[in-house]
Amino acid sequence: MPRIRHKRLDCSPGCAVEATLELIDGKWKGVILFHLLQGTLRFNALRKLLPNATQRMLTMQLRELEEDGFIHREIYPQVPPKVEYSLTGHGRTLEPVILALKSWGDAHTGFGKSKRAPVAPEQIEAVSETQ
Amino acid sequence: MPRIRHKRLDCSPGCAVEATLELIDGKWKGVILFHLLQGTLRFNALRKLLPNATQRMLTMQLRELEEDGFIHREIYPQVPPKVEYSLTGHGRTLEPVILALKSWGDAHTGFGKSKRAPVAPEQIEAVSETQ
Repeated sequence: MPRIRHKRLDCSPGCAVEATLELIDGKWKGVILFHLLQGTLRFNALRKLLPNATQRMLTMQLRELEEDGFIHREIYPQVPPKVEYSLTGHGRTLEPVILALKSWGDAHTGFGKSKRAPVAPEQIEAVSETQ
Repeated sequence: MPRIRHKRLDCSPGCAVEATLELIDGKWKGVILFHLLQGTLRFNALRKLLPNATQRMLTMQLRELEEDGFIHREIYPQVPPKVEYSLTGHGRTLEPVILALKSWGDAHTGFGKSKRAPVAPEQIEAVSETQ
């Protein structure tokens, strides 16, 4: 169940804007959701995509997104453990929001053109993924 | 000039999402931008629309939005001073982002239906507006 974090909001009708932002403005959450829109990703793949996020921070954000019902964590009982993250149906409803943020950022923030190539599966080390 | 706040971002191509969020996720910024999309507002009108924001917090967020080039502050030299806020052309480019956030929040967060009537101009006290 999504956590309730809006008890103190009293700003109708604009509150809906703030309530949405509160759910996605945790550090790196927007980027995580953006990458998961492209498909399922393993923890280490996400780490490669967000090199400046610490493992602890990334884990925390993934946990919150999971608690809010936006992402699903699938653990495969194998050695080494394989953990995959994907968007839930609820998470996918955020697509227009994430794409609007991306589109504006591309046009106005100077982050529009990637200087880094996408991470290829073979670049991702086969290390333990217990996050 | 907009402030540069993204030096530590290294998460292409998703960075554009994070960069946009960093500019609008200050407490109440989304709501302020939403209300200014409807038109110019005096400081006290904004206060009425965001009753839970302190005057200091609201002033701070307005200053940041102004520094980032999203809003314009017009001061009329009269007694009592009249201060109006409006979106700049740059601020108006955020409209699709704000509307996407609003639309999602309306549908998913329980803030879709306002219980409070819009603030009528006559409800706004004619007090000093030096913010």
